[in-house]
Amino acid sequence: MSDLAIQFADIEAAALRLAGQAVMTPLIESPALNAHLGLRVLIKPETLQRVGAFKFRGAYNRLVQIPEAQRAQGVVAFSSGNHAQGVALAARLLGMPAVIVMPADAPSVKVSATRGYGAEIVFFDRMTEDRVAISAEIAKARGAVMVPAFDDPDIIAGQGTVGLELFQQVKALGAHLDVMIAPVGGGGLMAGSGLAMKTLSPETQVVGVEPAGYDDTLRSLESGVRQGLKPETRTLCDSLESPAPGVLTFPILQQVVSTIAVVDDAEVACAMRYAYSTLKLVVEPGGVVGLAALLAGKIGPAKPGTCVGLVLSGGNVDPDLFSQVLAGKA
Amino acid sequence: MSDLAIQFADIEAAALRLAGQAVMTPLIESPALNAHLGLRVLIKPETLQRVGAFKFRGAYNRLVQIPEAQRAQGVVAFSSGNHAQGVALAARLLGMPAVIVMPADAPSVKVSATRGYGAEIVFFDRMTEDRVAISAEIAKARGAVMVPAFDDPDIIAGQGTVGLELFQQVKALGAHLDVMIAPVGGGGLMAGSGLAMKTLSPETQVVGVEPAGYDDTLRSLESGVRQGLKPETRTLCDSLESPAPGVLTFPILQQVVSTIAVVDDAEVACAMRYAYSTLKLVVEPGGVVGLAALLAGKIGPAKPGTCVGLVLSGGNVDPDLFSQVLAGKA
Repeated sequence: MSDLAIQFADIEAAALRLAGQAVMTPLIESPALNAHLGLRVLIKPETLQRVGAFKFRGAYNRLVQIPEAQRAQGVVAFSSGNHAQGVALAARLLGMPAVIVMPADAPSVKVSATRGYGAEIVFFDRMTEDRVAISAEIAKARGAVMVPAFDDPDIIAGQGTVGLELFQQVKALGAHLDVMIAPVGGGGLMAGSGLAMKTLSPETQVVGVEPAGYDDTLRSLESGVRQGLKPETRTLCDSLESPAPGVLTFPILQQVVSTIAVVDDAEVACAMRYAYSTLKLVVEPGGVVGLAALLAGKIGPAKPGTCVGLVLSGGNVDPDLFSQVLAGKA
Repeated sequence: MSDLAIQFADIEAAALRLAGQAVMTPLIESPALNAHLGLRVLIKPETLQRVGAFKFRGAYNRLVQIPEAQRAQGVVAFSSGNHAQGVALAARLLGMPAVIVMPADAPSVKVSATRGYGAEIVFFDRMTEDRVAISAEIAKARGAVMVPAFDDPDIIAGQGTVGLELFQQVKALGAHLDVMIAPVGGGGLMAGSGLAMKTLSPETQVVGVEPAGYDDTLRSLESGVRQGLKPETRTLCDSLESPAPGVLTFPILQQVVSTIAVVDDAEVACAMRYAYSTLKLVVEPGGVVGLAALLAGKIGPAKPGTCVGLVLSGGNVDPDLFSQVLAGKA
């Protein structure tokens, strides 16, 4: 895997940088979920991470490596929400200014949280404006560092610490993962965590999950070439609306991912209700797709007792939407 | 403390019985909460326990000690919900029939979950009927064992494993609790966990929290005599609507509790929203009172950096009520 954007050692180095900064999220097990599925599911709730999503890991791992002399000029990122919050908080912790370019229709809970971390927010129209161009212009004008949401070696390595911790925590329980399941947007989390898992446990199957209408990674892996898509529909999963796997993430995904499952909005809403009622966890649509795939029977067939590591990647969801989901209206 | 209903050794024995049956709930820490309060708060989320509340611990510890020969006649309990679920699940695991006497206005999520565990449910009118008499009659007719919600040595010892685990997990982090905070209804959780904590860490202050209108334990501790109350108002905290501390729990509470804080419905709702938005945890009104007291500044004054162990005792809340709370309407 020497031609990939990162090596396993980069993830180990990221873990050292994140120690004492990121939350070591616990492993959670629900006897009710295990019984329901006939599996053993070990849940890694990155909902409990700083900013409510794994994104803090990559952002901090990137920003902490910006040389002191360059920090005053700050950072720029574009994001629908969780990367925005991760960059904003990491910047605040490191004393750097941050500008975040967000779609005008981003969940308000993510906008206000990003602002709460002290970042300046610039809105753009998702359908008519080019967020890359807007961000690049701001970065150039300020001499600020652009922080990509996923297609960056330090970001990928930071997100990979989820998989590294998952392996270590499962091992500490005396268990062994047959399968690891995580959401796939641009592929940063899956590339990093999948690489960590396959390095430490080559026999573990790595399964990604995408929302219906945004199955660009599935189609890319099937064709062997990065496939973009013109998003024609929206999905509940705002955090997974990436139009294509990354230039850097895709070759890693090709190496580590066994299969991709696809879930629709109804399955996502059902999983959010299950997380609420049985797991007592608040999980956002894009964060719950792995559970949705399991509950919908889209991963398998698996022998009874199969041990599954399940990443719930984020929990930032507008209260209005959450209430609609609970009421069965979304 | 030799004249008390239980000794510390009873809690240790309960922990052995519960090993592999109850969930060892993790310790959770939120940098955002710590920064907001200027404290270090180590959260014990019993929301992640089987049946979504600590009540499984006491119920299982009681039921598993019923002799084999007596099990076929089953058990009877009265409860507004969480004890009901705990007894129902413990009975199912042990192959025993269970009858649960529930108030007709119990949260439907608790009623349906109790039924889901296979228990038979008998409803009573909270204002006009006597649940004790109804339960005793059923127990007599069937030869079944009555399982009290809190005033029973095995129940108290089982709930005490929350405090025992909290101490052990905090110690494993290399930390030390200045304060332990837990909800108080009939006092089973607080008596057991307080006794465990004071035995292992005598200098830790043990603080209970009651809902406004149900401050029977506060008034009992102040007067030195068990005080009952005629509930004139309702509270959001259905699981804490006990009219008086127990005969067995009260002498323990007198020994272990330093102070009792009282929170109103608005403070409880505020804490539920905070748990949703920042902690990403679903916590029921009665389970969140400790957090409510912290957020409302009702516990203190504390030196910055004071280390607090906070028990979030349950997460069973009707989706309709949860949505109302999120919308600021409850």
